[in-house]
Amino acid sequence: MAELQGHEKRLCQNGIVQPLLTDLYQITMAYAYWKSGKTKDHAVFDLFFRKNPFQGEFTIFAGLEECLKFLNKFHYSASDIEYLRDTLPASTEEEFFEYLKTVNATGIRLYAMPEGYVSFPRLPLMRIEGPLIVVQLLETTLLTLVNYASLMATNAARYRIAAGNMKLFEFGLRRAQGPDGGLSASKYAYMGGFDGTSNVLAGKLFNIPVKGTHAHAYITSFSDFSELRNTYLEPKGGGKPRDLLQLTLSWRNKILPLFNFTSIEASEGELAALVSFAIAFPDGFMALVDTYEVQRSGLLNFCSVALALNDLGYRAIGIRLDSGDLAYLSTVARRHFTDISIKYNLPWFETMLIMASNDINEETILSLNEQGHKINCFGIGTHLVTCQKQPALGCVYKMVELNGYPRMKLSQDVGKVTMPGKKDPYRLYSETGDALVDLIQRSSEEPPQVNEKVLCRHPFEESKRAYVTPSKVEKLLTLYWENGNICQDLPNLQQIKERVKHSLKTLRTDIKRNLNPTPFKVAVSDGLYTFLHDLWLKNAPIGELS
Amino acid sequence: MAELQGHEKRLCQNGIVQPLLTDLYQITMAYAYWKSGKTKDHAVFDLFFRKNPFQGEFTIFAGLEECLKFLNKFHYSASDIEYLRDTLPASTEEEFFEYLKTVNATGIRLYAMPEGYVSFPRLPLMRIEGPLIVVQLLETTLLTLVNYASLMATNAARYRIAAGNMKLFEFGLRRAQGPDGGLSASKYAYMGGFDGTSNVLAGKLFNIPVKGTHAHAYITSFSDFSELRNTYLEPKGGGKPRDLLQLTLSWRNKILPLFNFTSIEASEGELAALVSFAIAFPDGFMALVDTYEVQRSGLLNFCSVALALNDLGYRAIGIRLDSGDLAYLSTVARRHFTDISIKYNLPWFETMLIMASNDINEETILSLNEQGHKINCFGIGTHLVTCQKQPALGCVYKMVELNGYPRMKLSQDVGKVTMPGKKDPYRLYSETGDALVDLIQRSSEEPPQVNEKVLCRHPFEESKRAYVTPSKVEKLLTLYWENGNICQDLPNLQQIKERVKHSLKTLRTDIKRNLNPTPFKVAVSDGLYTFLHDLWLKNAPIGELS
Repeated sequence: MAELQGHEKRLCQNGIVQPLLTDLYQITMAYAYWKSGKTKDHAVFDLFFRKNPFQGEFTIFAGLEECLKFLNKFHYSASDIEYLRDTLPASTEEEFFEYLKTVNATGIRLYAMPEGYVSFPRLPLMRIEGPLIVVQLLETTLLTLVNYASLMATNAARYRIAAGNMKLFEFGLRRAQGPDGGLSASKYAYMGGFDGTSNVLAGKLFNIPVKGTHAHAYITSFSDFSELRNTYLEPKGGGKPRDLLQLTLSWRNKILPLFNFTSIEASEGELAALVSFAIAFPDGFMALVDTYEVQRSGLLNFCSVALALNDLGYRAIGIRLDSGDLAYLSTVARRHFTDISIKYNLPWFETMLIMASNDINEETILSLNEQGHKINCFGIGTHLVTCQKQPALGCVYKMVELNGYPRMKLSQDVGKVTMPGKKDPYRLYSETGDALVDLIQRSSEEPPQVNEKVLCRHPFEESKRAYVTPSKVEKLLTLYWENGNICQDLPNLQQIKERVKHSLKTLRTDIKRNLNPTPFKVAVSDGLYTFLHDLWLKNAPIGELS
Repeated sequence: MAELQGHEKRLCQNGIVQPLLTDLYQITMAYAYWKSGKTKDHAVFDLFFRKNPFQGEFTIFAGLEECLKFLNKFHYSASDIEYLRDTLPASTEEEFFEYLKTVNATGIRLYAMPEGYVSFPRLPLMRIEGPLIVVQLLETTLLTLVNYASLMATNAARYRIAAGNMKLFEFGLRRAQGPDGGLSASKYAYMGGFDGTSNVLAGKLFNIPVKGTHAHAYITSFSDFSELRNTYLEPKGGGKPRDLLQLTLSWRNKILPLFNFTSIEASEGELAALVSFAIAFPDGFMALVDTYEVQRSGLLNFCSVALALNDLGYRAIGIRLDSGDLAYLSTVARRHFTDISIKYNLPWFETMLIMASNDINEETILSLNEQGHKINCFGIGTHLVTCQKQPALGCVYKMVELNGYPRMKLSQDVGKVTMPGKKDPYRLYSETGDALVDLIQRSSEEPPQVNEKVLCRHPFEESKRAYVTPSKVEKLLTLYWENGNICQDLPNLQQIKERVKHSLKTLRTDIKRNLNPTPFKVAVSDGLYTFLHDLWLKNAPIGELS
C-alpha cells in the first residue's frame, strides 16, 4: 500500500521489532498447541487495559501503526528457526520447525480503535482473530508496541492540558530507557500534544520539528573577548558587516540603569559566548542565561546582544532558564523585556520566548500556573519520557473466544474478570459533540441507533443502569489488517496528532482534570450483561464454607 | 579487533544508535564553535552521576561496550547531512557541512571504568578527551547509552541482593519502555545478577538463558479431555508409549487424601491442558497452577501429572504462581511436595521449583523473606524493567578542561559543583579485599602506593579528612578508545556479569543493604582539594548583601 511504502524508512529503522522479540512461553505454547493438534483452532483475543495511568481518567491509544508494520513482516527467519531449534528441548519434533517456517500473519484479522483516540479501561483497543497459535504468538510484541506508546502519548496529552497554550518541547533523550525509548518518547510526545523535540533522529525519521540552542558547556567554553576570532556580522538586509561585540557593549552600558545596576558584574566569558552564538544564529538567537547569575549576568548580557542584533535587523527568539526559582526568574526576565520594549519602542521584545527546562513535570507546571509566572515555553525531559508517575501501562491480551465458543477468565477480583465473546464498542455522543458513554456490545447485536434510547449497564453492578439517547454513534473498532494486508489508509503522525486533540475535545473537562477527575463511563449493553453473567454463573465454582 | 567482530551481530541490530540520535543543541553548538574558529580547541569532559538510584548507596556502571561501538561508527551519513542542511537556518555556511562530513571519533580518547564495576557519585565513569566539537557531539548518545544500562544493572543487582540464592528471571518485555527498552532490560538485568529472561531475542542476541512455560490462555484453551487428540507418551528410557492421562487420573485418585479432599473439584480443562503440555515437554514440565484455584485444582492436577511423568522416567521442574498470597500458597505447595516426596519416596519431588511472578519488586521480595515462604524462583517484569522506584539515572557530561586549562561549573548548590581538570580515581582496598574508599586525584599527581599512608579529604567539607593505608590500589580509569580503535580486549556479557558479582563482594554489607545503607566514601586527594578550592575562590563572584 502507498501508506506503508511512505513509512518504509521507519520500517527499516527498528530492526529489533521482529518475531523473536517475544516471551519464550509463546513459543513453548505454540509447540504444545501444535503437538495437541490445535493448528486449526480459531481464537479471538482482546487487547485492553484495566486502569488509566497517572491517576487519570483517560488514555490515548497509540502504537497501532507499529503493530501493523510488525504484522506485515511477521515471519521467522532461518536464523530464528535455528536459534529456536537450539533452545527448545532436543525432543522437540522437527516438523514443528517446518510448521513455524510457514507461520505468518495472513490468517489474522486485526480490528482496532483509531490511533490517537481517547480510550478507557476494559474497552477493547484491538481485537485479534485468527489461528490460535498465531494469535498467541503475536501477544508480547503487540503489547510491547502498544503499552509504552499509549503511556507516552497519554503523558504528553496530560502535560499539554496542564500547559494550555504554552509551547512544549521534549528534551528527554539522554534520560530515556534506552535509545529506542528515547526515539519512541519523541514520537509519541509529539503525537500527544508536544510541539517538537530536541531529538534530531526523531526529527529526521518522523518529520517532527526539532529545537535546541546550547548547553552550559558552550557558555563556559569562553573565558573572555580575546577568544572571539570574529565579531563582525552582516546586517539582515545586507550591507557592510558591523562589529556585534562593540554594539553589544554599548547597549549594555545604555540599559544598565534599567537593571538598577551601577556597575557591570556580568561574566565576560558568557557575553563572548552569546556574541559568538548570535553570529552563528543571528535569526534564531536563543540563549541560556543561568550559567553564572541570571539577573546580574545572563539577562543583562542577553538583552544587550538582542538589542545589538536588532540594530542589524535581526530579532532574537528568547531565553532558556535551567535552574533556580522559575516563577520568580521568569517574572523578572519578562519585566526587563517589557521595560526595554517600552523604552526603545520595540513591541516584539516584550513577547520573547521564556523557556524553562529544569526538572519539569505535570505538577510543576500546575504549581507554576498557580504561583503566576511569565514562562511561555517548557523543555521537558526525564519525567516526561520515563513517565515517572507510572512508568508502565498494564495492557493485557486475553482470549475471549475459541472455536466460536466464548471464553472468560474468572477472578476473585472483579476488576480482573474478562468480558467473553466477540464484542464491539461504540462511542455515544451528545448533540453538542460530547462523548457521553462508551457502550460495549456483543458483535452479533444490532448497533445503537442515533436518536434511539439505548440501555447502558454497569458491567458488574446490577442496579447501575441508564438510558442514553445518542445524537451520534461511532463504532470504535475498524478492520485494519486482513488477508496479509493493511486495509485502511493510515494517517501520518501529524494527522494522528490532530486526532488526539480532537478526541480529547470530546471529553468533558472534569474527566481530564489533574485532581480527582471524574471517571468516564464504559457501559455494556443489556445483551452483553446477560451473556456475561450467565456464563460467569455457569463457570464459577460454588465454594464450600467450612 | 577480534572482540568487536564477535559482536558484529549486535552492532547491526541497533541501527538507531547513530550520530543523529542526539539533541539538536549539540549540532547548533558545533556550528557556533566552528564559526568561532574553535575546531582546534581541545576539551576534556567527565561523565558521572550525582546520586545513587533507588535510595541506595551504589551503582553498577554499564553501557561501555555500546559506547565503544557507537564511537566505532561515529560518522554523519549523506542523508544525515542533507537532513541537517534542511533543518539548520538557511544562513548556515555550506563549509560547515563539508566539515561535518569529515567528523569522526579518531581524535577521541575515551577512558572508562571497567563495565560492571560498582561506582559512586562524582566518580568519573568515563573521561572523554579530544577536539571540543567532537567531544561535545558525543554527549547525548553516550549519556543515553550509559544511563539506562547502569540504572537497569543496578536495579537487577539490588533484586539479586534481596533474593539471595533464589533464581531470578526477567519477564518484563511487554511492559518495557519500547522494544529496545525491553531488549536492554534483558541484557542488563542478566549483567546485574539475573539468571535469565523470557525475551527470546535477548537470548538469541546476547546468549542469555531463556525461560518460559505457558500463560493462563493455554490453560483456558482446553475445556475437557475430549480435546486431547493424543494422550500417549513414550517413556524416557524408550519403550511402548503409555497413556499419560490415565496414569494421571489414577495418581489423582491416589493422592486425594494427602490434599484432605473427599471429592475432586479440580478443573478438567486445566488437567487436559497440563497433560498436553507434559506430552510436549516431558523433560521440562513446569506448570502455571493458579488459573482456577491453586489448592483444589492447580496443585492437585500438577502433582498428578508430575507423578504420572515420573512413572515414565521424567522429572517435572515445578510450578508457577501468578496471583494470590504468594507466601501462603508457596508454603502450601511445598508441604504437598514434601508429603508426596515422603509417601512415595521421591526426594526430588520435595525440592521442585516454586516460581512466583505476580507484580514482584525488591520490597515484595524482602517482605516475603520476612513472612517466610517456600518460593525458590522469581519471574519479575514491570517493576524491574521500568525501574519503577526511579525510572532514570541522572548521569551528566561536564567539561573539566579546555585547551589545558581547568574548567569548573559553579553552583549555589554545592552538590552541583564540578571537579575541575583531568582526574584519576583510585579504589583503595583493605587487606581483606574490602573497598575502603575511592580517591580522586589530579591526573598529574603520583598514584597512591600500597602500604603507604595517603590523606583522603572530603571534597567540600574542610574538616573531614582521614588517612588510609591501602593494601591494594586499583586505578579505575583505563584507556579504551584511541586513534579510532578499541584498545582493550572487551569481556563478554558473562564475564561482565562475573565482574559485577565480584565488584559487589568488595563492598561492605551495610553499604548494600536496602534500608538506610551506609554511604561509601568518595574522597579527593589533598592536591585536588587545594586545586579545586583555589579555582573556586578565584571564579566565584563576591556577592553584595543588600
